Amino acid sequence: MPYFDAASTAPLHPVARQALLAAIDEGWADPARLYREGRRARMLLDAARETVAEELGVRRDEVSFTSSGTQAVHTGVLGALAGRRRAGRRLVVSAVEHSSVLHAADTHVAAGGTLTTVAVERSGRVAVEAFAAAVRGEADRPGGGEGEREAPGPAALACLQSANHEVGTEQPVGEVAGICREAGVPLLVDAAVSLGRAPVPDGWSLLTASARKWGGPSGIGLLVVRKGTRFVSPHPADEREGGRAPGFTDIPAAVAAAASLRAVRAEAEREGARLRELVDRIRTAVPRLVPQVEVVGDPVRRVPHIVTFSCLYVDGEALLTELDRAHFAVSSGSSCTSSTLTPSHVLRAMGVLSEGNVRVSLPAGTAEADVERFLQVLPDVVRRVRENLGAPVEAAVTAPAAPAAAPAAADPAGVSSPIPGPAEAPAPAPSSPASSPAAAGVDPDGVVVVDSLGRRCPIPVIELARRIGTVPVGTVLAVLSDDEAARLDVPAWCEMRRQEYLGEEPAGAHGADRGSAYLVRRLS
Amino acid sequence: MPYFDAASTAPLHPVARQALLAAIDEGWADPARLYREGRRARMLLDAARETVAEELGVRRDEVSFTSSGTQAVHTGVLGALAGRRRAGRRLVVSAVEHSSVLHAADTHVAAGGTLTTVAVERSGRVAVEAFAAAVRGEADRPGGGEGEREAPGPAALACLQSANHEVGTEQPVGEVAGICREAGVPLLVDAAVSLGRAPVPDGWSLLTASARKWGGPSGIGLLVVRKGTRFVSPHPADEREGGRAPGFTDIPAAVAAAASLRAVRAEAEREGARLRELVDRIRTAVPRLVPQVEVVGDPVRRVPHIVTFSCLYVDGEALLTELDRAHFAVSSGSSCTSSTLTPSHVLRAMGVLSEGNVRVSLPAGTAEADVERFLQVLPDVVRRVRENLGAPVEAAVTAPAAPAAAPAAADPAGVSSPIPGPAEAPAPAPSSPASSPAAAGVDPDGVVVVDSLGRRCPIPVIELARRIGTVPVGTVLAVLSDDEAARLDVPAWCEMRRQEYLGEEPAGAHGADRGSAYLVRRLS
Repeated sequence: MPYFDAASTAPLHPVARQALLAAIDEGWADPARLYREGRRARMLLDAARETVAEELGVRRDEVSFTSSGTQAVHTGVLGALAGRRRAGRRLVVSAVEHSSVLHAADTHVAAGGTLTTVAVERSGRVAVEAFAAAVRGEADRPGGGEGEREAPGPAALACLQSANHEVGTEQPVGEVAGICREAGVPLLVDAAVSLGRAPVPDGWSLLTASARKWGGPSGIGLLVVRKGTRFVSPHPADEREGGRAPGFTDIPAAVAAAASLRAVRAEAEREGARLRELVDRIRTAVPRLVPQVEVVGDPVRRVPHIVTFSCLYVDGEALLTELDRAHFAVSSGSSCTSSTLTPSHVLRAMGVLSEGNVRVSLPAGTAEADVERFLQVLPDVVRRVRENLGAPVEAAVTAPAAPAAAPAAADPAGVSSPIPGPAEAPAPAPSSPASSPAAAGVDPDGVVVVDSLGRRCPIPVIELARRIGTVPVGTVLAVLSDDEAARLDVPAWCEMRRQEYLGEEPAGAHGADRGSAYLVRRLS
Repeated sequence: MPYFDAASTAPLHPVARQALLAAIDEGWADPARLYREGRRARMLLDAARETVAEELGVRRDEVSFTSSGTQAVHTGVLGALAGRRRAGRRLVVSAVEHSSVLHAADTHVAAGGTLTTVAVERSGRVAVEAFAAAVRGEADRPGGGEGEREAPGPAALACLQSANHEVGTEQPVGEVAGICREAGVPLLVDAAVSLGRAPVPDGWSLLTASARKWGGPSGIGLLVVRKGTRFVSPHPADEREGGRAPGFTDIPAAVAAAASLRAVRAEAEREGARLRELVDRIRTAVPRLVPQVEVVGDPVRRVPHIVTFSCLYVDGEALLTELDRAHFAVSSGSSCTSSTLTPSHVLRAMGVLSEGNVRVSLPAGTAEADVERFLQVLPDVVRRVRENLGAPVEAAVTAPAAPAAAPAAADPAGVSSPIPGPAEAPAPAPSSPASSPAAAGVDPDGVVVVDSLGRRCPIPVIELARRIGTVPVGTVLAVLSDDEAARLDVPAWCEMRRQEYLGEEPAGAHGADRGSAYLVRRLS
C-alpha cells in the first residue's frame, strides 16, 4: 500500500530499525550509573548526541533529546521566553506554525504574555518585511497617522518554521535569522518538516525537530539551544539532558534517531531531487486531471516531498476514505477530518479552499509507479465523491484521458450550466425548517438566500454553486451557514469561480436564529 | 554479570521485547489518521490502554501514557494542583518521595504554592497519624498551648509513594487513602517501585508509574487520573492521551509496556515470594559477614526485591567500582555517587548512615547462586575499600566464616582499639592548613578538634573514629567538616557506635573559616 503521509510519520528507516534493535539490548540501563551496563548506555547516548551535533553543526551540550517534537517545541518556546523574561514577554510567531508552537503561545498568553501573529501570503510564506516589523516591534502601521499604535519594542522570542507541515512552503528562515540577530531577538526554528530533507539555514538560537518525521522512531525529538541563548527550563528540575528535558532519556530511540538522521541526510540531496520531480508531476497533473482543483503552497520555494491540493465540492473525509480503499494513505486539512470540525489553521491563514483537501507527502524511496497510479486513481475517486454529494454537474465531468486547461480559465460560465434539482441529490439530512425562515428564497431587498444551516462542508458551497446559476448576473446571494469551513470556502470558491465575495454578516439579518451569512454577487 | 539494580531500570522483559518488535512494524503510524496504517496503530494503542486499565482495575479513559515516569509525576502533581486551585494551594508529600515528586513540589512552591513535608520514621515509613494531620491541616502541635499555629485546613493534594525506591519500605497507602477520602483531599500515589511487584492498594485519585521499572521499555510512563478528580493539564494544549500528556504517543513502547505489565503481574506473587527470600538472605547475612554495617529500611513492610545497607568507613563510589569489577551492578545513595555530592534525601530523612551505601534490587528471575556469590564477594570488597581509606583497624577485620553478633552490640569498645597513625592512611588530599587553625588538637575549653575540612565522606567519620579512641571517656570532640554527608554520617556513626551526638554548630566557633562542627562526646 503506497503510504503518502510521510509528513505525519515517516516509515522507520532501515538504519533506524537496526540501531533501535541493537540499542534495546545494549543501551537499556541508566547512563548515570557507574557499572558496566550504565557505562555502555552512557557511551551509546554520548555517541548519539555527538552524531546529532555533527549533523547540525552544533556542540554536543547544545543538543537535548526530548520525548517528542511537541515536547521539544513546548519546552523550547516556554524555556526561551522564561530565559528572556527581563527582555519582555512578547512572542512573535507566524500564523502557519505547527499547532504545538501555537499551543505553547496560548500557554504564554494565558500566563500574561503577549503574542504577535504574522500573517502569511496566499502561498503560505511569511513576508520578510512583515516578520521583521513584528520582531522589531515597530508600529503596526508604518505609514503613520492617527491609527498608529505605540511601538512595543523588540520581541522576547520569535518562532518561524523552516517549512510548513501542511503545504510544504519554505519560510525565509535565513533572512529572518539575520533580522533577529540584528534586533537581538532569539529565533526558534521548528525544523520538523525539513530536517533530513533539506539543509537548515544557520543563524537560529533554538531549533526543534521530531525524529519520526525523518524516519527515526517515535518517542524522540530534538531541542537544540545554542550557547549564549538565555534559557530557563519551564519544567520541574531534572539533571538529565542538560536540565532541559525531564525524565529518563529513551536511549534506544535516541540512538536510532541519530543513526537515521545521518543516513537520511547522506541521501537527502539525491533523494530530494527525485521526490521533487515526483511532486512536480503531481502539481502539474492534478489540475489537468481533476476539474475544480486548487493546488496550494509555494510552487518553487518548498520542501521536496510535500504537495497539497483542495477539490471543490468534495468532502475531505470521504475523499480520504475512497483513497484508502484504493490503497493510498494521505492526510487532509479539511474540517471534516479534524476532531474539532474546523479547517486547518494553515489553510485558513493562507485563505485557500479547505474542502476536499489532500496532502500528499512522499517518504524517501517512493516509487514513481505509485505516484502514477495515484494520478490514475484520483480523478475517478473525486468524481465518485462529488456524485455522492450531488455536486454541480460540470464539476463531476472529468476527463482524465484528455486533460482540460487550467481550472480557473477552463469553464468560467460553468456555474450557470443546468444543474440537477435539489431532490436528485443524495445530500445529508436537510436543516430544520424551523430555523430556516428564509429557506424559500428571496429577501425583501432582493438577496437570494441559500440556507445551508446545519449542513457541513462541502454542502454550503455545493448549494451556492447550484443556486448561483439560476439567478441573473448581478444578483447577490446570502449563504447561511453555521459550519466553520464556510467562512473559508465561500470566499475561496468565489476566487476560483470568478464571482464576487462581498463579506460576512450575522445570519440574523436574513431571519435565521444562528450562523453567518456569506454574501456573494454573481459576476458571470 | 549479575545485575542487581532493577529498581533503577529492570532489564527488558522478553514479552516486552517481543511486543516492541511487533509494534515497531505494525504501530508506527499516526493513530489519528483514517487510513489503514493509522487504524492499525489506533487499534494497538487502544488495546494497550485496555490492558493497562484492566491490570489496574480502572477505566480506559483514566489511563494516559506519558513519556516517562518522571513526566507522569510532574504532570500528575502539577495538574492535580491546578485542578484544585480553588481548594487552596497546599501540597503534602512525604520526605522520602522520589525526586520527581519533590522537584514538582519545588515548582509548585516557586509558583507561590505551599508545601508540607511529612517526616518519616527511621525505617523510612511515614507515620499514618503524622500524614493524616498534614492532610487535614491540623495545627502543628496537637497538644495545644502558646506555640500552636493556626490550622491551615485540608490540603489541595497529598502525594505518597507506594513504596520507597531506595530502601524498599512500603508506605501505609491504604490507610492514608482512607484518610484523604474522608478529608476530601485527592491522593497521588507514585507506584513506580511496586507496580508489577506487589498489589497496589485502592483508594487513590491519581497514580503514576514507569514502565522500565517493571521490565517494560524506556520512554513510557503511566498517569492514571480517576473520574471525579479535578485535573487541569499544566502543559500546552494537546488532544492526545486525554489532554494530559502532550506529544505523539510512543505506541510501540506503550504496547510493550502493557504486555509486560500483564506478564509480570501474572508472575508477581510467585516471583515476589522467591525474591523476598533472597532479600531476606541478604538482610540476615550482610551484618554477619561485614562488620559495621547498618541494614536500612523496614524489615517486614517492604517490597520483595529491594534491600539497602550502609557500610561504615566506606566510600560508596569505591565500593560500587569494586563490586563492578567483581561483576555486580548495584546502586548507592552515598554522596560521592551523586552529581551534587550530597547524600540521598531518603537516607537523610531516615537519619541513617549514608556512607558506603549499597542498594541491591533484584530483577525477576535473579538466580539464588548469584546472590550467594554476592555475599561471598562483598566482605572482601568492603575490607579492601576500608584498607585503602585507612579506616580504623577493627572495622577492617572481617570474619566471613564465623559471623559476628549484630553490629551495634558487636564491639562497643572497638573505637578505642589501637589505630594506625594518620600518615599511614592513603587518604585524599589534606585540607588547606590555612583554613584549619584548630588542626593541632584541643580548644581552650577542652574540646578535641578533628579537622576534616576539605575532605569528603567517609574521611570525616574515619578521622573521628581514629581520634575518639585516643581521648578519655567523657571528652567532647568537634569534627570540622564542609562535606554535606557529615551532617548525616556523624550522628549515624554515634548511634551505631554508641557514642553521644551533641549537635552541630558553625565551625567558626573552633576557629575555622567555613563548614560546620559536629560535636560528639565519648561515652565508652
